[in-house]
Amino acid sequence: MIKKVLIANRGEIAVRIIRTCRELGIQTVAVFSEADRYALHTELADEAVCIGPARSTDSYLNMENILSAAINLGADAIHPGFGFLAENSRFAEMCEACQIKFIGPKAQTIDEMGNKINARRLMIEAGVPVIPGSDGVIATVEEAEAIASQIGFPVMLKAAAGGGGKGIRKVLSEQELGAHFQSAQQEALAAFGNGDMYLEKIIYPAKHIEVQILGDQFGHIIHLGERDCSLQRNNQKVLEEAPAFSLPTDIREQIGQAAIKAAQAVRYENAGTIEFLVDEDNRFYFMEMNTRIQVEHPVTEMITGIDIVAQQLKIASGLELSIQQEDVHFQGHAIECRINAENPRFNFAPFPGPIKELILPGGGLGVRVDSAVYQGYTIPSYYDSMIAKVITHGKTREEALNKMHRALVELVIEGVLTNQEFQMDLISHPSIRQGLYTTAFLQETFLPEWLNVAEEE
Amino acid sequence: MIKKVLIANRGEIAVRIIRTCRELGIQTVAVFSEADRYALHTELADEAVCIGPARSTDSYLNMENILSAAINLGADAIHPGFGFLAENSRFAEMCEACQIKFIGPKAQTIDEMGNKINARRLMIEAGVPVIPGSDGVIATVEEAEAIASQIGFPVMLKAAAGGGGKGIRKVLSEQELGAHFQSAQQEALAAFGNGDMYLEKIIYPAKHIEVQILGDQFGHIIHLGERDCSLQRNNQKVLEEAPAFSLPTDIREQIGQAAIKAAQAVRYENAGTIEFLVDEDNRFYFMEMNTRIQVEHPVTEMITGIDIVAQQLKIASGLELSIQQEDVHFQGHAIECRINAENPRFNFAPFPGPIKELILPGGGLGVRVDSAVYQGYTIPSYYDSMIAKVITHGKTREEALNKMHRALVELVIEGVLTNQEFQMDLISHPSIRQGLYTTAFLQETFLPEWLNVAEEE
Repeated sequence: MIKKVLIANRGEIAVRIIRTCRELGIQTVAVFSEADRYALHTELADEAVCIGPARSTDSYLNMENILSAAINLGADAIHPGFGFLAENSRFAEMCEACQIKFIGPKAQTIDEMGNKINARRLMIEAGVPVIPGSDGVIATVEEAEAIASQIGFPVMLKAAAGGGGKGIRKVLSEQELGAHFQSAQQEALAAFGNGDMYLEKIIYPAKHIEVQILGDQFGHIIHLGERDCSLQRNNQKVLEEAPAFSLPTDIREQIGQAAIKAAQAVRYENAGTIEFLVDEDNRFYFMEMNTRIQVEHPVTEMITGIDIVAQQLKIASGLELSIQQEDVHFQGHAIECRINAENPRFNFAPFPGPIKELILPGGGLGVRVDSAVYQGYTIPSYYDSMIAKVITHGKTREEALNKMHRALVELVIEGVLTNQEFQMDLISHPSIRQGLYTTAFLQETFLPEWLNVAEEE
Repeated sequence: MIKKVLIANRGEIAVRIIRTCRELGIQTVAVFSEADRYALHTELADEAVCIGPARSTDSYLNMENILSAAINLGADAIHPGFGFLAENSRFAEMCEACQIKFIGPKAQTIDEMGNKINARRLMIEAGVPVIPGSDGVIATVEEAEAIASQIGFPVMLKAAAGGGGKGIRKVLSEQELGAHFQSAQQEALAAFGNGDMYLEKIIYPAKHIEVQILGDQFGHIIHLGERDCSLQRNNQKVLEEAPAFSLPTDIREQIGQAAIKAAQAVRYENAGTIEFLVDEDNRFYFMEMNTRIQVEHPVTEMITGIDIVAQQLKIASGLELSIQQEDVHFQGHAIECRINAENPRFNFAPFPGPIKELILPGGGLGVRVDSAVYQGYTIPSYYDSMIAKVITHGKTREEALNKMHRALVELVIEGVLTNQEFQMDLISHPSIRQGLYTTAFLQETFLPEWLNVAEEE
C-alpha cells in the first residue's frame, strides 16, 4: 500500500485528499505556492513544502519542483487532484520515471483520451455512440464543408487537443466555415502545438450526463452510476446531482453499460468519468472522458457510500477492486452546489479577499461541506474562485433540495462576495424543483430572469 | 402539520432542531437568555425572543416566559430539546392548557416514567426484566435491610423521583444502610419534595445499552436499534456508538423487543429512549426511560438514515408513523464524541470564554459536526459545557474510528480548553479500538492512566 502521498494541488480538493489519506493511515505532503502559505491544505498535511511563487506556472504547474519535493520528502505517490497537472501525460510519465506512482490512469490512456479525434475513433470501435461528425482529422476547409453539409448546420468545429474552450467554434452556416476553420486551427496550434481539427453536430439543448468509473490494473471495471451536470454557465458546472433522476431507468442502464465499454476500450485504470450528451429523444452520445477525479465526485459518494479518493489510493497501490458491480447500491439523491467567491451580478467576476466571518452549515443529517477556507483566511487572486462545495443527501430529490436550501440559508460568508444567493435562487426555481432543465436552462432562462429581477430591485 | 415551533432550549440541540424545521418548511422561534443574545440558535431561527436573565431558572426554566413568547409569536408547538424543561410534566401540561403542542410524550407518561418506583412496577407488569431490588416504596430502614440482605451487598439506594445524582447512595454493607437511608431520603425530599426510596442491586461493571424508540398516537411503536453508551464519567456520557456491536445478535434483538414492550406499556408517544444495563453474562435489565430526545441521537440517525427530530415533529403533528419496523435498516457503524469546553486535567472543570479560532472538520464522507459555536463567539459560563458533537459514520467500526481520529486531528478550537485531546487519546486506546470496555473502563482504567501520563510529561 502507498505510504506517503504528495498532493500536487491546492484548495478543497487538496484538503479532501488529505482527509481520506489520514483515514487510511497514509502520510501526506502538501505543496504550496507563496500565496498559499496559510492555506488549509498547507496546515492540514503532515508535511508541507513551498514549490514556488504564486503564479500557477511557477508552482502548481511546475513539474520539476513538485517532483523534487516528492523525492526529497520520500513520497511514493502523487495525487494530482483535478485541474493543474491532473491530465498532463508528461507529468504522469515523469512520475513513473522517478519511481513515484501517479495516482491516475497510465500516461498512454491520458493521451488516448486527451486527443478527442482519437477518443472518438476508439469509441466508435468499441460500439459506444458518438456525436455525428467527422472521422479523423479534417485536412481542409473543403472536407469540413462536405461533412457539415451532410450533418446539417449548425456544427461545432473542435481542436483534437482541445480544452478550456480553446480552438472551438460554433459554425452557423457554410458561409462562416472557412474563416472559423482557419482561426480555430491557428488558436489550437498556438495553445496546444497541435492544429488537428474535427467537426461534430451540435446536440443542444441536451442533458449533460456523466458516469463515474473505477478500474483496477487487473482489468476490472465498474461504474458508480451517473450524475446530471446540465446546469452550466460557459461550460462551467454550477450544480450537480446524482442519480440522473430525469432519465428513464433503461436509458440510465444503457448509459452505464456504454461507460463501462468506453473504459474497457482503453483498459482504464483508476477513477475516471465518461461524459455523455443526451438529446430530447433520450439518444445519448459520448462526449469525452475525464481521466481524473472530478469536482462533483461527492454526489456519487453520497448515494453509493463509496469513498472515491480511497478507491483511487487502493487502485494506485496495486490492489484489486474490492467492489463488484453488484455491490454498488444507490441510496436516495444527492446535490452539490459550488460556492465561488465571485460577483454574479458583474459577470461572475472572481472576488478574492479576506473572509471576515464564516459559518459553514455542516451539521444535521445529510449535509456535507467540502471546503478549504476558514475565518481569517484571505482568498488569493491567483487561482480558481471555488471556495466550498455544499453537498446534501436525502431519501428523495425533494428532501435533498430542502436540505440544500436549509444549508444555503445557514451559510455565512462575510468579507467577499459569493454566488450563495444565486445558488439559493437557482434551487428555488420551479424548473429546478421539478427537475425540468437542460444545458440551455441556466444561461438562456435562469440567468436573464435572475439578472432582470436584480435590475428591477 | 405544525406550522411554527418555539424551541425551548439553547446550544447545539436548539440549532439541530431549527435545521430540521427549516428542511420541513416549519417556522422557528428561538428563545434566548440575556447571555445568549449572540448565540447561533438566536441567529438561525426565523424569530428570536429574549426570555430573561442569564441564569437558567430565570430564562430557560422560566415556563411562564416561554409560554408567553409562544403565545405572542403564534407558535403552535414547543420543542423542549433535552435538559431544561424536557422532562417536566407540569410544563407539558401547561403547554396543552395553552393549546400549544408539547413535542414529546403526554404529561402522564413523563410522570409514569419519571417516578422510578412506578416505572419499575410497570416494567415488571409488562414482562421487561428489571434490576433485582425492592417492590414499591421502602418505608423503613428495617425493610431496606431485609431486602438488601436478600439481594446481597453492595446495593444502590435510590430516590423514586431521582435525577442528576441526587438522593442516591451506594451502600457497601448493612452497617452503612441506616445512615445512608436517612441522608438520601432527606436529600430527595429537599430536591424533589418526594422522599420515596427504593433499592437495587448494583450491576457493575456493565454495558450501558439504550434503545431509541418512536411511537405515534395510534399506538404504533418501533425501535431504531441500540446505542452503546458505556463510556461515562460521573454518569455523564462521553462517547457513544451505534449499533451495540459487542453484544451477540440475539441479545440485541431481545433488548430491542424488550424496549418495544416497555414503550407499549405506557402507549409511548414521540421519541424516547429505554436504557438497559447488560451484565457480563449478557443478562439485561431495564434501568430507566428518557422521555425526550437524547444528546447521542445522531449515531442512530447515521446508521438508519432516519431524522429523529423530523419524526418527532411529524408525530406531534398527529401523523401516523410512516416507517414500519421492517423498514428500519442498519448501515455501518457510527460514533459520537462530545466536545466540551473544559479542562480535563483539572477535574474537567468547565472552561467558558471566547473562541478565537475555530475550524470544524465537517468535510469528507461520513463526518458530521453538530455544534452551536462559531469563531468570535464567547461561551457563557451559565450552561452546560458541551459545545459540539463530532459524529462519524463508516462501513465498519474501524472505519468510523479512523474517521473520528481524522476529524479530531483536524478540529481547531483556540481560546478555550477542551477535551479534544482526551477524546483523541480515548479513541486511540487499544481497549476502545478492540471494543472491550464496560461502564468501569473510563473512570477506573483510562482516566487514571491518562492523568498519570500527563503528570509524567
